[in-house]
Amino acid sequence: MRLTPADELARRVSALQKLLQKKNIDGALIMQSADLFYFAGTAQRAHLYVPALGKPLLLVKRSFARATQESALEDIMSLDNVKEMPRILNNYGFKDIKILGLELDVLPAAQYLRYQKLFAPAQIVDISGLIRTVRMVKSAYELDLLRAAASLNHTLFSQVQDFLQEGITELELAGQLEAVFRRAGHQGFVRMRGFNQEIFYGHIMSGTNLAIQSSIDSPTGGPGVNVSFPQGAGYKRIARDEPVLVDYVGVYDGYMADQSRIFCLGRLSDKLVQAYETAVEIQETIKKMAVPGASCADLYQRAVDMAAASGYGENFMGYPEPVPFIGHGVGIELNEWPVLAAGFKMPLEEGMVIALEPKFIFPEGAVGIENTFVVGKKGLETLTVFDEQIIYLGQK
Amino acid sequence: MRLTPADELARRVSALQKLLQKKNIDGALIMQSADLFYFAGTAQRAHLYVPALGKPLLLVKRSFARATQESALEDIMSLDNVKEMPRILNNYGFKDIKILGLELDVLPAAQYLRYQKLFAPAQIVDISGLIRTVRMVKSAYELDLLRAAASLNHTLFSQVQDFLQEGITELELAGQLEAVFRRAGHQGFVRMRGFNQEIFYGHIMSGTNLAIQSSIDSPTGGPGVNVSFPQGAGYKRIARDEPVLVDYVGVYDGYMADQSRIFCLGRLSDKLVQAYETAVEIQETIKKMAVPGASCADLYQRAVDMAAASGYGENFMGYPEPVPFIGHGVGIELNEWPVLAAGFKMPLEEGMVIALEPKFIFPEGAVGIENTFVVGKKGLETLTVFDEQIIYLGQK
Repeated sequence: MRLTPADELARRVSALQKLLQKKNIDGALIMQSADLFYFAGTAQRAHLYVPALGKPLLLVKRSFARATQESALEDIMSLDNVKEMPRILNNYGFKDIKILGLELDVLPAAQYLRYQKLFAPAQIVDISGLIRTVRMVKSAYELDLLRAAASLNHTLFSQVQDFLQEGITELELAGQLEAVFRRAGHQGFVRMRGFNQEIFYGHIMSGTNLAIQSSIDSPTGGPGVNVSFPQGAGYKRIARDEPVLVDYVGVYDGYMADQSRIFCLGRLSDKLVQAYETAVEIQETIKKMAVPGASCADLYQRAVDMAAASGYGENFMGYPEPVPFIGHGVGIELNEWPVLAAGFKMPLEEGMVIALEPKFIFPEGAVGIENTFVVGKKGLETLTVFDEQIIYLGQK
Repeated sequence: MRLTPADELARRVSALQKLLQKKNIDGALIMQSADLFYFAGTAQRAHLYVPALGKPLLLVKRSFARATQESALEDIMSLDNVKEMPRILNNYGFKDIKILGLELDVLPAAQYLRYQKLFAPAQIVDISGLIRTVRMVKSAYELDLLRAAASLNHTLFSQVQDFLQEGITELELAGQLEAVFRRAGHQGFVRMRGFNQEIFYGHIMSGTNLAIQSSIDSPTGGPGVNVSFPQGAGYKRIARDEPVLVDYVGVYDGYMADQSRIFCLGRLSDKLVQAYETAVEIQETIKKMAVPGASCADLYQRAVDMAAASGYGENFMGYPEPVPFIGHGVGIELNEWPVLAAGFKMPLEEGMVIALEPKFIFPEGAVGIENTFVVGKKGLETLTVFDEQIIYLGQK
């Protein structure tokens, strides 16, 4: 299995340490699987202590054997009882922790209250913003993994034609494509950050099911197969002359590529074709504008303006309730930073990776395009290379 | 789609209210998807306020349209801005909330701190134990759904013979079986409660891969396909004369059945066969002992004693590090209460649903059995009916 190299971990830890120093935080105690995978190279159950200065220490609960095989960090210890942690950190030279950072955006309150007591009188602060800031800019090593994820998607999108036929249910199509993903090495689980952020591969819907909204922050929702998990593919049979959205997330060695294409058995209406072309125009415009230094809020506004000028403004990014963004960072979670949204003032940097997804939703269906890009010197470079037309099948 | 009936929701809400009254808690504010699905009949993004006395109020963020279609509760309102909540609750007659219960086992700390401020000077207390207590005992309605989930598993286990062949990788087998699940109506996403509790359908491993431990609280771990998600099926090719574990979770209309069987192409060693038979004997003994009133800790101890007497005690429930339980509640999450563990003193009640999974792990493989049962008057009744022998394939 591919292991994160020591110098890559060192670069990541050092980037976090700079932010800890700037905020006068003595150290960060990292516990979430995705963050552990990122900073320690292992997703085994553990605590990673990253001091503002000095070498990080990984304290592993389970499995210690695997963590030592997987992590290139130098200092790894077994820790069975969390209560021992303050003493161990102290013995290790991390004395007098006054301000301790935790991932308060994901750490449950009950655990937060226990750590607060355990590390008293230290002040506990939220370092999730610092972590997301570090993770936002991808290294050359990470870009290789993102290209591997994009290649997984290429395999998937190339095989849609083998399964998509009139009368097949969305769910059946989803199941077949998920088997393609798995055979190609997909890890299955797609990580989203935060409370109640649940997703399963992505969304495959057709026609009117594309207009069904759900709780998820996505331009499409979908019925799902039941009320318990109300998103994604449903039991609707796919018909001719309606859009079929395949919006799936390839995950390879932990890194993900988010991509959508519109397929159709037959022909789409002129209206949907026009809206699709507008989506592609928006993509092309944003690709050029999204140079290092550009503001996410400006990109968002330009897309909204272009959608309005096309006459389909009220169908842009969700109908009747749009989501307030046109794209989002991706990496080892599906909802990373930056967010291409009005409220996101941070400028783009080279190496950020973004899924841009201009989509138009109508009562009879939805169209649009989504690719995962890296911010390069001259704008967005496409990672998820695949035919960008509406993909018509079954013409014979 | 199947909607939870009003009288079923009323029963659940009333059971929670009795516990709130007993603990002198003024009301519970429920936000987690699984708990919303259980108490409100919808998993849309919402807050459900359950007063200790009176009718519950569902405040929906997204999608309001779907929540009103899905939930049989009488009082449903749209709420866009969480800050409005104290005012709305007050206007609605829920005045002077002094003690407010939140799901502190899953609610992230950052959100907890915001609610604490929002509802000040109310005291915030953890009601996750009360919720898990209510959810622990299943109604006749829920048992029907659990039987439907078991039937999904029956479909899956019946088709293993169609895909399992020498040389197929675990991952390929997993992908094929997952497609069977999806075609049969599986929702895909398998819910586990708590921080870092990630699972994807379950575990399919063979031979030596069955001995690989992982972070998950499960007797088997598995390599997974990468370091990011280090559990479950890997790239190992399945060989003759080794055990193949299929431990998968069927989820139908939100309810799940957890089940394992051992398959084998060829023959297993006498040692593994003996260990398997011991696992079945443990299951049979626990089934009879697990009557209403029995102590979970006693059941656990009996299983451990039987394993020790068989001579394979140190291989029971994980090797080299066993997990400290032999079974766990299931319902709409995979790790519900009760837990058949030394520390779980609560007596069994009729209607509890438990996955019992006596397993033995050896360096060369693992064997054991798992079924989902309901606690009946005379002990455990099997929901996941299927051949309970080692299933030998490819004999011709």
